[in-house]
Amino acid sequence: MQTAILLYDNFTALDAVGPYEVLSRIPGSEIVFVATNPGPIRTDMTSLALTADASLTDITSPDILLVPGGPGCAELLNDEPVLDWIRQADTTTTWTTSVCSGSLLLAAAGLLTGKRATSHWICMELLEAFGAIPTSERVVLDGKHATAAGVSAGIDLALHLTGLLTSDRIAQSIQLVLEYDPQPPYNTGSITKAPPPLVTALRKTNLTITA
Amino acid sequence: MQTAILLYDNFTALDAVGPYEVLSRIPGSEIVFVATNPGPIRTDMTSLALTADASLTDITSPDILLVPGGPGCAELLNDEPVLDWIRQADTTTTWTTSVCSGSLLLAAAGLLTGKRATSHWICMELLEAFGAIPTSERVVLDGKHATAAGVSAGIDLALHLTGLLTSDRIAQSIQLVLEYDPQPPYNTGSITKAPPPLVTALRKTNLTITA
Repeated sequence: MQTAILLYDNFTALDAVGPYEVLSRIPGSEIVFVATNPGPIRTDMTSLALTADASLTDITSPDILLVPGGPGCAELLNDEPVLDWIRQADTTTTWTTSVCSGSLLLAAAGLLTGKRATSHWICMELLEAFGAIPTSERVVLDGKHATAAGVSAGIDLALHLTGLLTSDRIAQSIQLVLEYDPQPPYNTGSITKAPPPLVTALRKTNLTITA
Repeated sequence: MQTAILLYDNFTALDAVGPYEVLSRIPGSEIVFVATNPGPIRTDMTSLALTADASLTDITSPDILLVPGGPGCAELLNDEPVLDWIRQADTTTTWTTSVCSGSLLLAAAGLLTGKRATSHWICMELLEAFGAIPTSERVVLDGKHATAAGVSAGIDLALHLTGLLTSDRIAQSIQLVLEYDPQPPYNTGSITKAPPPLVTALRKTNLTITA
């Protein structure tokens, strides 16, 4: 079972690495990081690069496609070679998936038209503009298209998929290996839980944190 | 504020990337990935490499040191140049931290002797053998030494530290940006919650998942 994870400049690291850490532990799983130009690809926070080992032309029929989000996806919304690659990959996948604003790329490729999907909370209107039915759940499955909310939601998405692809036992084992027993010190992880002024401030700065 | 994250062959990606995703968003924060030999460093699951931009000699006085875990740390337990670098960094840090089995390296460097600390659940006995007081909490602070449980616990650790280093508002904002509102599909993320046969099986295989 081959999972292709698309990398591009200014993607968000955890969007890709969260699912990678889960899916790579499925017995028999092969993960390949793919980019237009293979080599080190810088994340949005700039101090980290992940290596893409394959080019788009190297990987044409993955079983799972995962598209992470990040500010850099804005520049790909009109990148026809990338959108074509996503469309082509989707013809062979068992699951076509995204984390965070990665769903905008699936939508721009035409794969989410009329489908329920989610994205980072700040992208939900744009997701609708691209023809999807924005759905405020952490993990949304519609047919073989599975989308996750912002950044960290990719871990939950990958555990869901692992259960569906293999067995509860394997998914539960991976959760235990990763000691995924979250205990965040605050309860501000969604716009329904965070204080409204915090949400408003982050909308204004487009998610940049100010001192 | 400079955070140095140590990379080495066969580290676990999420141990490093979870905290990176949080700490890199602190205003004024600089993160640098450090390794004995800079360049791409392969993770334990082999299909991913993260780039270390700096060598040990480049970074001598970080404000925060973060040591991720992974199977590869076993080979560093007797690596005196790495242990010396950890000891030296610790003399200038505000916080010296680890995720998962990374605490074994802090302990091997002598920094956790007689101190409360945690690690991946499978490493707790070894942590004690290295002189620390193993403590079954997800995030353990003892003085300026902060250790996290397995893999995903680094996200919680980093949010804790962010609150202590900056303000609740900034830490809460980062949680909202990362949409860290965990909803794992199972409740098997710790050895007290997972079915005992699952724990036993993973101990036997040393965390390898079998089909």
